[in-house]
Amino acid sequence: MITLLPVPGLPEIGAGDDLGALVADAIEVRDGDIVVVTSKVVSKALGLRADSTESTDRPALALRESRRVVAERMTSTGGVTRVVEALAGPVMAGAGIDASNADDDHLLLLPHDPDAAAQEVLDSLRAATGVGGLAVILSDTAGRPWRAGLVDFALGTAGLRALDDLRGHADAAGRDLAVTVRNLADELAAAADLVKGKLDRVPVAIVRGMPDLVAEVPAVDLVRSGPEDWFALGRAEAVRDALGVPAGSQLSQDVGIESVHPETIADRAARALRVASSAERAPSAARAGTTRRASSITARGEAVVIRLEDADPVRLGHTWARVEVALAGERLGADATRDGTTVEIVVRPTRR
Amino acid sequence: MITLLPVPGLPEIGAGDDLGALVADAIEVRDGDIVVVTSKVVSKALGLRADSTESTDRPALALRESRRVVAERMTSTGGVTRVVEALAGPVMAGAGIDASNADDDHLLLLPHDPDAAAQEVLDSLRAATGVGGLAVILSDTAGRPWRAGLVDFALGTAGLRALDDLRGHADAAGRDLAVTVRNLADELAAAADLVKGKLDRVPVAIVRGMPDLVAEVPAVDLVRSGPEDWFALGRAEAVRDALGVPAGSQLSQDVGIESVHPETIADRAARALRVASSAERAPSAARAGTTRRASSITARGEAVVIRLEDADPVRLGHTWARVEVALAGERLGADATRDGTTVEIVVRPTRR
Repeated sequence: MITLLPVPGLPEIGAGDDLGALVADAIEVRDGDIVVVTSKVVSKALGLRADSTESTDRPALALRESRRVVAERMTSTGGVTRVVEALAGPVMAGAGIDASNADDDHLLLLPHDPDAAAQEVLDSLRAATGVGGLAVILSDTAGRPWRAGLVDFALGTAGLRALDDLRGHADAAGRDLAVTVRNLADELAAAADLVKGKLDRVPVAIVRGMPDLVAEVPAVDLVRSGPEDWFALGRAEAVRDALGVPAGSQLSQDVGIESVHPETIADRAARALRVASSAERAPSAARAGTTRRASSITARGEAVVIRLEDADPVRLGHTWARVEVALAGERLGADATRDGTTVEIVVRPTRR
Repeated sequence: MITLLPVPGLPEIGAGDDLGALVADAIEVRDGDIVVVTSKVVSKALGLRADSTESTDRPALALRESRRVVAERMTSTGGVTRVVEALAGPVMAGAGIDASNADDDHLLLLPHDPDAAAQEVLDSLRAATGVGGLAVILSDTAGRPWRAGLVDFALGTAGLRALDDLRGHADAAGRDLAVTVRNLADELAAAADLVKGKLDRVPVAIVRGMPDLVAEVPAVDLVRSGPEDWFALGRAEAVRDALGVPAGSQLSQDVGIESVHPETIADRAARALRVASSAERAPSAARAGTTRRASSITARGEAVVIRLEDADPVRLGHTWARVEVALAGERLGADATRDGTTVEIVVRPTRR
């Protein structure tokens, strides 16, 4: 049996507070306990607040707290919301910058080394209680691709067997469990959220009954990235990136970022044309002195028509293919006809 | 306080077994309990086994159990592993088809309506115990983008407030919690896995202490898809799709699928050339009768060089742009020079 215990009665946390001592005052911590602490209070204790200027421009702040942009969309207020690989490690929306439950108008930032922050809490908890066999998880909240709703996950760990590697073991029927590595840290963080509850100001919970997971092991990297990450970019971002418009760049902003709300075919087609044209390194004609080229986008009845004209036929073909790819990236289809140095592309609402 | 209780002592489950009655025999179920059942035993009880022929071709079976393919890679054994939107609902590897812990060589399939299967277990549990205030979760195991290791999630639910919508509530500081919808079903499934344990043949667990979540509400769709899904395709698949090579298609197989293992630049460049060429609808020249075109790929010292030749300059430019995009999709760069009706592309290992 495992029990999930909320740690109630903690005071409002401020910069410089000793979290371990406060937890020790609030509840009796026992050998084998796993203490799950909401990253928000750790950020508060560490004083990780953005200053007033930074706090007014949240998208810029999120970019600064990021390694790279995975996906980006325009919001209804004209801002940009981004899913990024945060300096704190995980891929998450807005670099995990937090406004809710802050005690003033300053935004809270995540620690850049969450494992070290977890170790600090563990050290202070041990000093305050004299109990050695403990583990600490910093938990944070995130959405995930393909699933509705948010869940908690492990941002940092200390003293925890975070990944349970069952490879090499056999299952009950004697078959090898070839690829079963459990992310127990994420499961523990999710479980702890069930008793913490966002509205109840209970930022800490204890998982009791899994002493086997408490072990002095080096923290394992729970983030999957690099070539093993099949989803390193969003769908739209992968296509734009392949056309030379990386997410998070000034160019991306200039050509226009897809909205979170539905857009007209004309708007999406116009953006596709900008994506295709703007990042194109003119393949040859510019050097040869032949610079006459033009493109236009017009409505023809219900349809949207893109017209490309170029005195250089190679460049014409080059732009044509890029427009087709960019349209496909917008989930739009294309029917094209060519007449001399002109290509006319009729945009279809869906791809064939 | 919440307690997580394993349900030990269950017999091996076979087709036709009454899971609710078996659980009622093994443990005292109380009002307000949430019973988490591993989908594997539900599939066994429902007799959802593939027949012998199907079981020998797992990739084909997984495709049949899928709505669409999100990402695909070649494995070391020459097979294909795919992340798909399963007929059972969620996006997962191999459509959730299970070989481990099966009692013979037949593969286990997921129920196509997991909520209905959960409801069946709930009905039988109520009938066997006489307890009305219960909820059931069917849990399954999956990896996720960006995170290491597997966790359990909720495949189906019955009698459960699966999503906790906090929108409209204020946080402790009085701010609106604008976008906080909790996926409690996934958090409960993850928590239950901590006591179930894959090796211990404990396929059922009870979460006790959250009676508020037990409510006669219609099961909510926990799967996020459609335009809201920014990650509807993998990075490589998004680019290939935009070039006319959809994941899961025969064409995708023909031009070659990326391997899970590292590949040489020459192999990746050759695949990019095949992707760019094979799905190209020849823009004009074929109709005009001008068909002379050729492409080749060669090594030049350390470098890989793609050479395109086409009597039709528009088509030359068209193919050129498609090759550049396909190379970018392989995370390769390109430096091109043009000479009359020939384009030479020197492939770079990384993009600028």
